[in-house]
Amino acid sequence: MRLARHVENTLDGPVTRVVVAGADHGTWHDIRGSARRRALAGGATREGAARLAESLVPASMSAALAGGSAFLDVAREAAAEAAEETRIETPALTNALDPVSYRDFMVFQEHFSFGYRWQNRSVPDVMYEFPVSYAGDPLAFLGPGDVLPWPGYTQRLDYELELGVVIGRGGTGLAPDTALEHVVGLTILNDVSARDIQAREMGGGLGPSKGKHFASVIGPVITTLDEIPVEGLRMTARVNGELWCDTTSAEMIWSVAEIVAWASQGEMLRPGALLGTGTCNGGSTLELGHWLSPGDQIELEVEHLGVLRNSIGSPGPAPWTPQARPRESDGRTRQLHFLR
Amino acid sequence: MRLARHVENTLDGPVTRVVVAGADHGTWHDIRGSARRRALAGGATREGAARLAESLVPASMSAALAGGSAFLDVAREAAAEAAEETRIETPALTNALDPVSYRDFMVFQEHFSFGYRWQNRSVPDVMYEFPVSYAGDPLAFLGPGDVLPWPGYTQRLDYELELGVVIGRGGTGLAPDTALEHVVGLTILNDVSARDIQAREMGGGLGPSKGKHFASVIGPVITTLDEIPVEGLRMTARVNGELWCDTTSAEMIWSVAEIVAWASQGEMLRPGALLGTGTCNGGSTLELGHWLSPGDQIELEVEHLGVLRNSIGSPGPAPWTPQARPRESDGRTRQLHFLR
Repeated sequence: MRLARHVENTLDGPVTRVVVAGADHGTWHDIRGSARRRALAGGATREGAARLAESLVPASMSAALAGGSAFLDVAREAAAEAAEETRIETPALTNALDPVSYRDFMVFQEHFSFGYRWQNRSVPDVMYEFPVSYAGDPLAFLGPGDVLPWPGYTQRLDYELELGVVIGRGGTGLAPDTALEHVVGLTILNDVSARDIQAREMGGGLGPSKGKHFASVIGPVITTLDEIPVEGLRMTARVNGELWCDTTSAEMIWSVAEIVAWASQGEMLRPGALLGTGTCNGGSTLELGHWLSPGDQIELEVEHLGVLRNSIGSPGPAPWTPQARPRESDGRTRQLHFLR
Repeated sequence: MRLARHVENTLDGPVTRVVVAGADHGTWHDIRGSARRRALAGGATREGAARLAESLVPASMSAALAGGSAFLDVAREAAAEAAEETRIETPALTNALDPVSYRDFMVFQEHFSFGYRWQNRSVPDVMYEFPVSYAGDPLAFLGPGDVLPWPGYTQRLDYELELGVVIGRGGTGLAPDTALEHVVGLTILNDVSARDIQAREMGGGLGPSKGKHFASVIGPVITTLDEIPVEGLRMTARVNGELWCDTTSAEMIWSVAEIVAWASQGEMLRPGALLGTGTCNGGSTLELGHWLSPGDQIELEVEHLGVLRNSIGSPGPAPWTPQARPRESDGRTRQLHFLR
């Protein structure tokens, strides 16, 4: 099953609908419309059917997934039926997921080795001890076709080709052999990065922030795990039509199941949470010595997950930047008079 | 104005209500109830008044703040009126904010200097160039009185006494002189930390993840900026009744306005976003050489913001942990046949 979100212009402005591809993947269908038809056929009034359908299929994919199998069942019915009455005439897909939280790992060794060399560091041991991640901004997600913003504070905008792992069912303390039961599907993730400020920030040890949080891209679809293998997917990136990356997710040093299991230790993973695998090998400009420019066309493709296309916008206005502080001695020690 | 959230047990299970303190701070009042009374007085039907009040005052503080001045006006009215009919008889406060996103800075020099020494590093220059932050999990927030979970993967649980800055009005590209117009108020933030895994993770350069994301605590109230000074608040921490920290927010090397302004460059800050200042000087056990134990009682107090009390829970079950990977050569280079 391929789930996505479609934007429709209405009297209330742009309205987002959760949609599913028909069985032959040639058409998109409004899942809420399908649920409403089914309720009507069961004797519901027009108002009752609308109310039930809206609660089963809200505009938010995360909220829809939080309905569990009640939502997935109506989505499956809508796809199987592929009724003409629910068909979206002119699909305009947006970010397939509006994640409730976003954590991005770094599990492709060749990519992270490049990254550490770029920072003049050797690869730290921890990268081989467990999957390491940073958290991103769940509110900054764009979708297919959106122009990627170029913050005024960066000269080095970059894309990152990743697999996005979408949690469908909540869970904590999972082991890898059951972790995939909590994953509803996979999607393409572009963890857009501003390399110059990212490098400065990461010197502080707290990870990237301004270097990442201004935008991420997800979509065009979430393909459910029952339709595809979870490992070994071909991943390619093209910039202005030229192939810049051609690799496979088989090169991950931790599996999707291990990433999910580790993320769930001591924490509750919730429906609509997004876990990224980190950049695939060769999946950014960092290792290529090619940079991006405004107007560039980025196409990220993953087997079974479609193509995620975006163009690069023009640099934004000059930012306000803080005035540097005088560096004081590191050795200043508080008089801890209240402790022996 | 002091805003908070109260939990009430109902036929539908625990239900959260956004509440406000009466003018003398002695009573808590249900803002939705106040809005409903006002609508009834304006001629609304019972059903119409309930619908209007629910849309103005949802259960989520972030969603309420997203209503802008329409929400703040009804909150102010409820506080001024402090009507007996809206009074919460037995207040049970929970996390005052359910943030839509969470970013935590590190702007107290003495604390971060201790932190870097603890990591055997000198303070990196970037700490004096701009405010550096990491993103946390917006879904892991607890409130006053909650028992803090002790993940099975840590031996070194710690508290962090911080100021929480709550965004009330969206904005991007802000300068410090207008940034505070986008802050609705301040609260106490405990950025609970697992020091051992945090230190290992931070060696990877992506910042903390398992060391932080399992829990944060916020509350008991959000005090609006019109009532308090934004700088120079006294901050104290007591563990089992003993004073472990006594400092002031005046020691921040970047102001609240500068933190908000920097966070907003190239990004849209949204109502309900939470920015932490990072640990105040002396505000964790890191610099004290005292550790926490299960059962410890933590009291964090900030002038005008109340006291945030929590106890430390028992260690959780032994986690699943990944099997370390063999370390490969860092120097492996992909044959980039498709690039010159």
